[in-house]
Amino acid sequence: CRAMAGAPARYLVFFQYFGTRYSGVTETRSDQALLGVQNYLEKAAQKLRPSAPIKFHISSRTDSGVHALANAAHLDIQRAPGKAAFSGQQLVQGLNYHLKPEPIRILSAQRVPSTFHARFCALSRTYIYRLLLGCAHFSQIPVFERDLCWAPAGGPLDIPAMREAAKFLLGTHDFSTFRSLSSETPFQCPVRTLLQLEIQPAPGFLSHHYGHRGLEFWEVKFKSRAFLYRQVRRMVGALVAVGQGKLAPREIQELLEVKDARALPPHAMAPASGLFLKCVEY
Amino acid sequence: CRAMAGAPARYLVFFQYFGTRYSGVTETRSDQALLGVQNYLEKAAQKLRPSAPIKFHISSRTDSGVHALANAAHLDIQRAPGKAAFSGQQLVQGLNYHLKPEPIRILSAQRVPSTFHARFCALSRTYIYRLLLGCAHFSQIPVFERDLCWAPAGGPLDIPAMREAAKFLLGTHDFSTFRSLSSETPFQCPVRTLLQLEIQPAPGFLSHHYGHRGLEFWEVKFKSRAFLYRQVRRMVGALVAVGQGKLAPREIQELLEVKDARALPPHAMAPASGLFLKCVEY
Repeated sequence: CRAMAGAPARYLVFFQYFGTRYSGVTETRSDQALLGVQNYLEKAAQKLRPSAPIKFHISSRTDSGVHALANAAHLDIQRAPGKAAFSGQQLVQGLNYHLKPEPIRILSAQRVPSTFHARFCALSRTYIYRLLLGCAHFSQIPVFERDLCWAPAGGPLDIPAMREAAKFLLGTHDFSTFRSLSSETPFQCPVRTLLQLEIQPAPGFLSHHYGHRGLEFWEVKFKSRAFLYRQVRRMVGALVAVGQGKLAPREIQELLEVKDARALPPHAMAPASGLFLKCVEY
Repeated sequence: CRAMAGAPARYLVFFQYFGTRYSGVTETRSDQALLGVQNYLEKAAQKLRPSAPIKFHISSRTDSGVHALANAAHLDIQRAPGKAAFSGQQLVQGLNYHLKPEPIRILSAQRVPSTFHARFCALSRTYIYRLLLGCAHFSQIPVFERDLCWAPAGGPLDIPAMREAAKFLLGTHDFSTFRSLSSETPFQCPVRTLLQLEIQPAPGFLSHHYGHRGLEFWEVKFKSRAFLYRQVRRMVGALVAVGQGKLAPREIQELLEVKDARALPPHAMAPASGLFLKCVEY
């Protein structure tokens, strides 16, 4: 009976993944060609021989091709009677051992109260979007950067204009224009508070060894308590359109005011490859 | 006849590759499970419809798992009568088009005289070896750095001792101890001149976003006109042994003086994953 088995232990885990070969972070049916990161996490957790199946409650959903430096989840582990709860370190080692061939890695694990919820207790999420400038063609993307950035076509970007546009997005707004429609749209409030939006030059992988080739990496950083479905990729797409002179900075303000997802052309969404969930703050 | 077809045009090309899924840069028999980078280069070149098969003469041989920011090769292209020779740009685009799915990329191509030889005309080669410190276990390697560095086991490295040891390797020596034996060993002079050996801290991929995790990247840079078989990996292995206190800096000098490949234990060779051919200078 449940009482004899002891209460399950709840853990908060942080984990990292290279998103290219997953359908996204969320679990998919196991007969799909591309599985979710969650499928692998739960399969690894089952190998720790819990006395009840383990479910990961993911903090932040990410799409196929999106990466995470650190996503978060909570899970409950019920062990057989008489067995002590895993320590955080044991859980990290055990999960990583079974995740071994996958580009998914548990960074840390800690016990949390049974009232803790990885999704609802998060105070904020920070995303990084990586842009590569100076490529006339996608074949110029360094092989070590493939699937890890977006090289928008068509010459340099007007960064000052992008920064000016970014100011309109900062703060609390109805972001309806900047979300993609999904089955959840009708039930979700479109108001979000963007706490941070910065556009900064950044290094690429080994780029200090090929600086002369005219490639430039830039990072766009977004912080908010929560984001709408594909909001970051759509905001990046709109900012890049500003950088390319296709939109005036002021038009970002107008797009916000329209409050209609159909106002942003679908091709204006930035690809998944450049997006990284940097961290979830509690 | 050959004269009517015009002389073949010779090109020097620089190319980049992610070495993990290749048997090395050199061509292998096409029935092998893992092919060489050269197999893919030549297959792509054949799609440009030359009137004679194209052979890449590679500047610098690299092992399976070794990467290149820029390796070099020369090749001759004989086109059908009446067809103009490819421009460098056309060759880059044509080859990259056919290499598309592979993590191999042509960086540049230029016409060179028919006396030019990519291997023998090179003035020097520069290699970078990437070390990751601060990992207690290989599962702590960031997923984005897998196959792209070496995280030697066992705590921090004594960098000043490694730098002291490096001084013994600089300059002209008989490097017999620091080569691996191969069928070519008896025919190759073991004297080489190491022009540069530097050990410097360096950034990792997105490491500015997780600096707090105690991971440190270091790069060891080697420059010489030419290297012996596996010389860089064996020198790195010996330097890391010094950093770990297993060898005294002065013992590097003694190892050189022994002039015997068997003097360095085989497990002292650094793995291929951390090694990058940075460039070939002409």
